[in-house]
Amino acid sequence: MKIVGLITEYNPFHNGHRYHIEEAKRITGADTAIVIMSGDYVQRGTPAVMPKRLRAEMALKCGASAVFELPVCYATGSAELFARGAVSFLDRLNIVDALCFGSECNDLEGLNTIADILLEEPPQYRQRLQAELKEGKSFPAARQEALAAYSGSKDRAFLLNDPNNILGIEYLKALKKIKSSIRPYTIKRKESHYHDTALSSQYSSASAIRSLLAYSSSSIHTSSFGSTFENTPFSNILGELESQVPSCCLELLKDYHHVLYPVYQNDFSLILKYKLLNKKPKEFIRYNDVSEELANRICSCLNDFFNYKQFCELLKTREVTQTRINRALLHIMLGIKKENIETSTQQGGHFYARLLGFRKDREKILPLISKKSSLPLLVRSTDIEALTGTAKKMLTQDILASNLYTSVITDKYKTAFANEYNQPVIKV
Amino acid sequence: MKIVGLITEYNPFHNGHRYHIEEAKRITGADTAIVIMSGDYVQRGTPAVMPKRLRAEMALKCGASAVFELPVCYATGSAELFARGAVSFLDRLNIVDALCFGSECNDLEGLNTIADILLEEPPQYRQRLQAELKEGKSFPAARQEALAAYSGSKDRAFLLNDPNNILGIEYLKALKKIKSSIRPYTIKRKESHYHDTALSSQYSSASAIRSLLAYSSSSIHTSSFGSTFENTPFSNILGELESQVPSCCLELLKDYHHVLYPVYQNDFSLILKYKLLNKKPKEFIRYNDVSEELANRICSCLNDFFNYKQFCELLKTREVTQTRINRALLHIMLGIKKENIETSTQQGGHFYARLLGFRKDREKILPLISKKSSLPLLVRSTDIEALTGTAKKMLTQDILASNLYTSVITDKYKTAFANEYNQPVIKV
Repeated sequence: MKIVGLITEYNPFHNGHRYHIEEAKRITGADTAIVIMSGDYVQRGTPAVMPKRLRAEMALKCGASAVFELPVCYATGSAELFARGAVSFLDRLNIVDALCFGSECNDLEGLNTIADILLEEPPQYRQRLQAELKEGKSFPAARQEALAAYSGSKDRAFLLNDPNNILGIEYLKALKKIKSSIRPYTIKRKESHYHDTALSSQYSSASAIRSLLAYSSSSIHTSSFGSTFENTPFSNILGELESQVPSCCLELLKDYHHVLYPVYQNDFSLILKYKLLNKKPKEFIRYNDVSEELANRICSCLNDFFNYKQFCELLKTREVTQTRINRALLHIMLGIKKENIETSTQQGGHFYARLLGFRKDREKILPLISKKSSLPLLVRSTDIEALTGTAKKMLTQDILASNLYTSVITDKYKTAFANEYNQPVIKV
Repeated sequence: MKIVGLITEYNPFHNGHRYHIEEAKRITGADTAIVIMSGDYVQRGTPAVMPKRLRAEMALKCGASAVFELPVCYATGSAELFARGAVSFLDRLNIVDALCFGSECNDLEGLNTIADILLEEPPQYRQRLQAELKEGKSFPAARQEALAAYSGSKDRAFLLNDPNNILGIEYLKALKKIKSSIRPYTIKRKESHYHDTALSSQYSSASAIRSLLAYSSSSIHTSSFGSTFENTPFSNILGELESQVPSCCLELLKDYHHVLYPVYQNDFSLILKYKLLNKKPKEFIRYNDVSEELANRICSCLNDFFNYKQFCELLKTREVTQTRINRALLHIMLGIKKENIETSTQQGGHFYARLLGFRKDREKILPLISKKSSLPLLVRSTDIEALTGTAKKMLTQDILASNLYTSVITDKYKTAFANEYNQPVIKV
């Protein structure tokens, strides 16, 4: 058995993701693809547009052999923390031969060179980075400048312009750092640019598809006709989705529309406001990604809180990226503290492999993981009760985050609540 | 100047309340009526149907001279705590001559007799009470039985059947306990029974009027007609309100409908769920009105949480009243702990007199209060900053509770947020 690992969000799952699974197997010669996926919150610092089990099921239907959940503290971390969390997870399974990631450039050598520089941080590079930061540049912009200056290649530094190249570099850094035996591969992303919101022929970005779904749940009133966009028949949107999403996923999208999804930041507005009202500035600094400046800004802007998304945008300054602010507020809401991440990192970063689902035609990998992995395989809620200490704390945080997400769905779509503790593993 | 004190909720203000103000002045010979009113949450353990300043303004227009806010820990306390908080507040102003409350019975002597028994708790009475409680009766039912047995008068004990008689008894107990010089009066309530939800000719209960308002904001879809109850013109409801509410209040009701009100328990569903998810059973016991049994029940029922109101009803058992459960959950949500109430009680119960509004033709009572009252008069936010210790803690809790209430309104009606710190005093 040859196994390729895939690091994903699937927010939501689309044709480009199926291509990624198939192509990863093809170029690595693997017969099995193990996916480590974000849970109900993603790295942009927002809730996922649909629940993790729905996204996992689509991936399994499209060829993923097993899907594991990336703990929420990594899934919502900086690109570096996200990559470290995901890569070290795959490494500690002790059965993954290759890692295949999509990138805009498809230039593994170029990405590797940058990864080396960022990992070693030569003095010249570091000085330039500090100088750029002092000028008030955001960290990503400063890093790109410093890299261009150090490597003498604007072209190479330009790779840092694209979000999937950046993630790829972080994967490579993480692999190098832990001296992993996993061999990296990259493929060119078969989709339009990450930030595009317009649909293209059949490989639109997840972001464009989220926009399409948002259209179906907009509540802007077209009062002159006495109807709302909410009444736009989902069948119209489904027509558009047909060309963007594997056909085996359409049934799920149809069945669970306005039952389990879409979910947005603003569905959490009141919850965030409640949490923010209850705290003082210095208490915010405990949460991951919250600087002292941001903590003060949150408090001084709180009177102008209108909704979650608007508040994230309101807090934006030149020095900080929007996703960093999103993540900071998400960490406050979910209670993810700096000390949580420090403690778990010190203790090895991972304590369990939480299985969301697997393909029955690949079920033999489960005993293999049980045998080889350095992490206990969590399948049933009884497995959960066996954990203690930091492991238990981390899993409790994952479960709490998902229960909150599910509560929002329950409230939004008036459906019954299903506690995360009792959720069965998906078998496809 | 002769001053009568009124203890109120005005949830919402109606003809019966105007009658109370006028009649209280008439029978006590007072020219001035000082009102101590619940803020944004009321003694039933729910949010008020409209914000405190709107309710205060109506009372001022209808003859109240000044309206003060009862701190939230008393406003949402048991009948005994509510009465103690309100009566001791009026007493400590040191200028109130009389207290006039509405009752179903209009029998001050009868209420006084019961108050004496409940205050002294003679051994015979107490034993019977314990016996009734052991049989599994709720506290109110057990108390009524014990009182009937002790006094040998079913009729007298029957007074405990009506909620305003019960509150009246608690006022009398509180006056006796602190040996107040305030003289009590009672008048017969000019309205239908408290629990009635049907409207009567012109003195409907606040509860009936809340039902009417709820009708105007129901979101049950009458899909066959493609319209919703939400589209029911408010003018229809206003027609009904005209006979129930003083005409000088109608303009306010019209202007602020779907801007500041109505507000319901279920508008807080997600906030409550968030708080409940984040706690363990033993942590709930810290909050006022939460017993160990209730704390365990909250945790074991949490998977069946659908919305705030339904969850309160789900938690109901034979031994506990519904309002007690409402209050318990409200205290959890607002963070009102047993120790908060113990500490402030030990230190005298009140630390400030927070003015919501006054009539300009009675403004001379403000310097009088400043001079005579044992409590500092809070008018501006700068007055607030002067407080320290328990006083500051109590006021912070009041402000937090109101900011949460206002946040819910902001979210529900898409209006701008006005921080409680900066709210001006109403002048009518």
